[in-house]
Amino acid sequence: MLETTDVVIEAAVLGANDAFYRAFTRGDYAAMSDLWAERAPVTCFHPGGQVLVGRSAVLGTWKQLLSGRSTFELRCDRPLVRLHGDTAIVTCYEGSDNDPAHLAATNVFALEDGRWRMVHHHAGPMSNPLPRPSRSLN
Amino acid sequence: MLETTDVVIEAAVLGANDAFYRAFTRGDYAAMSDLWAERAPVTCFHPGGQVLVGRSAVLGTWKQLLSGRSTFELRCDRPLVRLHGDTAIVTCYEGSDNDPAHLAATNVFALEDGRWRMVHHHAGPMSNPLPRPSRSLN
Repeated sequence: MLETTDVVIEAAVLGANDAFYRAFTRGDYAAMSDLWAERAPVTCFHPGGQVLVGRSAVLGTWKQLLSGRSTFELRCDRPLVRLHGDTAIVTCYEGSDNDPAHLAATNVFALEDGRWRMVHHHAGPMSNPLPRPSRSLN
Repeated sequence: MLETTDVVIEAAVLGANDAFYRAFTRGDYAAMSDLWAERAPVTCFHPGGQVLVGRSAVLGTWKQLLSGRSTFELRCDRPLVRLHGDTAIVTCYEGSDNDPAHLAATNVFALEDGRWRMVHHHAGPMSNPLPRPSRSLN
């Protein structure tokens, strides 16, 4: 059973997770940069790719990915938060606009100066894309 | 620059990560079960699949996967540890025997009673498999 404090913490983590997908959807590099941790070590697997290590490498790819692309909504379906002290793992499914979700994602956040900031992202292809859930399942 | 204590902690995390691949390679369900956290919440993405939530669901699939299969070595190439307090993220590439690594993996460990235990595994297909590194790169 979740304690009240866990509910509050989970909401804060989900807020950080939402900020990731909002930054992507808006092509907002400044917001994306602000979300990723500054001091904690960061890593990132883009779909199908090799690991990126360190803020410069990770943010460099986000800058490239977010510039000059057609705008589409990157959805985060069925986000699930698991708390591990000052670290939190969010699992979810990523889909574009109303298409079925085609990526499984692991997003890891860590507390930095009282803020949940992203320290790891791993998105990888799913064998069977998942239809967008109805709002009640979200 | 890494502190001496970080080097010691990283070695302990790598030991837990090795235990995961050893348990898989040996088809050793008892070792796999022992590795996963008992109290901390656990989650798992098998390649291309949907998220498994909770020890029963996660271990249930490992029991199935580890029973009655042909034995092959599941390698963990280029493991990289990133420490976040009492949580650690290992990224690596997974390959079978001497084949190129075809999966990118995120393994998350948390301290439970002084032991690093697995709390999350995410393996997903790579677009371009990576040849097995020479030992010097490992």
